[in-house]
Amino acid sequence: MNYEFILNDLRPSQEEIDAVNKTTEKVISFLNKTCKEENIPAQAFAVGSVAKNTWLSGKSDIDIFIRFPLKTDEAVLKEKGLYLGYKTNDALKGKASEHYASHPYLTCLIDGIEVDIVPCYWIEDGSQLKSAVDRTILHTRYIQKHLKKSQEDEVLLLKKFMDAVGTYGSEFKTGGFAGYLCELLILKYSTFEETLRQAQDWKFHTKIDLENYGTSDNKLFKNDPLVFIDPTDKNRNVAAALRIERMLDFIIASRNYINLIDSLEDADENIIKEKVLKYFSPLLKERFQDKSVKEISDDILDEFKDRETQTLVISFPIPEMNADALHPQLLKTVESISHKLESEDFSVYSYDYWTDEKNLVIFIIELNVFKQSKYYVHEGPKVWNKLAFNNFSAKWSQESLYHKGEFIVFDRERQFVTAKELVKHLLEKDNIHEIKVGKNLRKAISSTHTLCEIDEFLENIDQFICDEADQREFLNTLDDLLRPGQYLKR
Amino acid sequence: MNYEFILNDLRPSQEEIDAVNKTTEKVISFLNKTCKEENIPAQAFAVGSVAKNTWLSGKSDIDIFIRFPLKTDEAVLKEKGLYLGYKTNDALKGKASEHYASHPYLTCLIDGIEVDIVPCYWIEDGSQLKSAVDRTILHTRYIQKHLKKSQEDEVLLLKKFMDAVGTYGSEFKTGGFAGYLCELLILKYSTFEETLRQAQDWKFHTKIDLENYGTSDNKLFKNDPLVFIDPTDKNRNVAAALRIERMLDFIIASRNYINLIDSLEDADENIIKEKVLKYFSPLLKERFQDKSVKEISDDILDEFKDRETQTLVISFPIPEMNADALHPQLLKTVESISHKLESEDFSVYSYDYWTDEKNLVIFIIELNVFKQSKYYVHEGPKVWNKLAFNNFSAKWSQESLYHKGEFIVFDRERQFVTAKELVKHLLEKDNIHEIKVGKNLRKAISSTHTLCEIDEFLENIDQFICDEADQREFLNTLDDLLRPGQYLKR
Repeated sequence: MNYEFILNDLRPSQEEIDAVNKTTEKVISFLNKTCKEENIPAQAFAVGSVAKNTWLSGKSDIDIFIRFPLKTDEAVLKEKGLYLGYKTNDALKGKASEHYASHPYLTCLIDGIEVDIVPCYWIEDGSQLKSAVDRTILHTRYIQKHLKKSQEDEVLLLKKFMDAVGTYGSEFKTGGFAGYLCELLILKYSTFEETLRQAQDWKFHTKIDLENYGTSDNKLFKNDPLVFIDPTDKNRNVAAALRIERMLDFIIASRNYINLIDSLEDADENIIKEKVLKYFSPLLKERFQDKSVKEISDDILDEFKDRETQTLVISFPIPEMNADALHPQLLKTVESISHKLESEDFSVYSYDYWTDEKNLVIFIIELNVFKQSKYYVHEGPKVWNKLAFNNFSAKWSQESLYHKGEFIVFDRERQFVTAKELVKHLLEKDNIHEIKVGKNLRKAISSTHTLCEIDEFLENIDQFICDEADQREFLNTLDDLLRPGQYLKR
Repeated sequence: MNYEFILNDLRPSQEEIDAVNKTTEKVISFLNKTCKEENIPAQAFAVGSVAKNTWLSGKSDIDIFIRFPLKTDEAVLKEKGLYLGYKTNDALKGKASEHYASHPYLTCLIDGIEVDIVPCYWIEDGSQLKSAVDRTILHTRYIQKHLKKSQEDEVLLLKKFMDAVGTYGSEFKTGGFAGYLCELLILKYSTFEETLRQAQDWKFHTKIDLENYGTSDNKLFKNDPLVFIDPTDKNRNVAAALRIERMLDFIIASRNYINLIDSLEDADENIIKEKVLKYFSPLLKERFQDKSVKEISDDILDEFKDRETQTLVISFPIPEMNADALHPQLLKTVESISHKLESEDFSVYSYDYWTDEKNLVIFIIELNVFKQSKYYVHEGPKVWNKLAFNNFSAKWSQESLYHKGEFIVFDRERQFVTAKELVKHLLEKDNIHEIKVGKNLRKAISSTHTLCEIDEFLENIDQFICDEADQREFLNTLDDLLRPGQYLKR
């Protein structure tokens, strides 16, 4: 299949390339000049997708690393690194914000382009690694050395496809495929299309070992759904951050895509183009086209009502915490609430969370069974076990014991007849230990939260979410909850 | 413990014994005289609890067997047996009704006592068995030979205890302990109290082999909860008809009783008597004391309402069928409806059936979850299996597939959002094959039944059940459903 018609949009234009190169050179030369002037034994150079020629048009992030000699004290590296970053930012009239990976670094907006300025050590191979960011150098060098010019397009196709089906990006929020992993997949399978063909047959714990290190059985990887041994470090799994959900999404989307193009073999070229293009484009949601927040929200509410479920919405402010830890803790917490509901015989149909990553978190829990009867069958030991029976019987001597199956049981009054009552209870300060809540969230949730049903929330959405773009983003999350498969088949 | 105060009520009075003996002798001598006169080579004699001296006061069933030589043709035995029965009945001014065990026999009401007149073969041991009823002779002879005079009282105590806790009787309705099994348990454990002490430790598949035949591992018995090798037939389990539910009931009641008397050791004699007596008396239900059907039914309805469950009531006429087959088929059918409800994600809290055994059957199904949302998650194969995925995906190509856990799924509209709709569907002629219905019941249910909720049924109970005694019996069944453990601990 000839993807030229798509690649035209994916490849950065000459103007974009010129602009990126110009800014890159400006930053590097200023940094190197400053180092020379101030006798700092460091050197700046470009890494990342810009350095590898694998960035998607409009998604240029310039990554500039400043490498210090291996013997440099870490405190000195951190201090000088930030100092150089700020100085460059000021000189080039940028707008800087501090971030933290394995040590602090600066993200600067210079000439309208995001530039990361990151101090690192001057290493030659994996054995010399002193901090996690140093790997980036090795990765950049490996891809620069092995990726053929013609394969750069294949990387672009794969990244864009991944992006459209929702599996691109290894940050915690997505838990998908990192850019470097996409590049390695092209090294492994040569082309975009072949990668998808092969991915159709991936199993849980598929192992790929490009350099034949023979380390893929390392027991550290035994729970990873995909193991791709890092060619620059035989003891590392590049796919360690890939969640099984995103791997399955990618497998499904790959099969859907391959099934599509195989079925289209003899079709009209325009039809092929139209259908294929959808897999490389953001999902067009009719519900959101030219509609006000009110209209969208009414529409979504109608759909929830039609489903005859009950949807609980919990919102609370984000506590002071490391941004990286936020998403895993949110996922863990909403999962834990759902599990607790299930363990009390309610049935959860779906759940998700949304956050603006600044102020607000919203949990959404949709229930199939949300109301139960007054009693439940409290199960004791098997009747056959006399000692356990007698203990149970003594403990519950006021109850009328009988057996169900082979177990001794009695009818016990439920503490919570509705799911909402149970959730209300769980979020209270004294009970929050009953669920697994990320430690940073515990206090934030239990001291300030609102719990309501979806209709009440949507009718008062302005009170919960101020910004209209955020409101739309939240409504989009609800839409995804209602249509969980919509990205995977276009 | 001295049980004399209870035994006084359990032992038949001298008057009762005299009356039973008189009638027994009358029937036997008439039968023998007739055989002699008409040259029938058969002889009558008493078997069963009357012959064994193990009948409870007021529960005398006289069993008279007429034994024919082994060489007698079965057709002749059947014909002559019934002939002799009817002739005796007429001569003694009885009221006869025909029944069927392995062949037809007569039940006659003579002098106000029930007398079974049953033809059988004249056998000496198990190897000569020609029909199932012949065993009764061997059983009677075995007990007469081995049960000590003093143990007759122990049998009475055990039978009465079993009766009070609801485990006495091996007919299909109860599925409990037969009289013969009670007698054998006393032979094994010597006394009533020791039987209960030992029963506390019974496990699933406890094996008792009084005559040390070594046959208790016979694979025919492998699913039987209790194996008691018949001393008169090493290849038969006397407890074959015992359902695990009744065995568990008996174990629980035994522990409750033994725990009680052990705890009472130093108590006042009157208190002991009062508490112990409860285990040998019918359960006194306050709800039923001096109350009209309307009052009881209102009271029960209040309790159902308080439970916040939904209780469905299905009633239909009994079809023409063998009475023995009725109870197993009713149980199987109501169980199957309940399982179907569970498999469609409704949750059944309890179920039972009631029948007057003449005209009417009523199923009762109490639900914890009786309403669900519009969709359910229709689960396909694991995503990893490409071929199965592609087949599923092709079959459901109009649906939006996604994965849940490792399975490919989609949201599918439920056919039935309420339990009542589902039950209504299942009982229709074209759908009744979806449940396991006893073959005799299938047509009866699907052509004529009413389905309603408990409040509607009780408010119109006269329309469903004519006889007041039957109404009370049905209400008693509902009371047992609401308090399943009440017989086991007094």
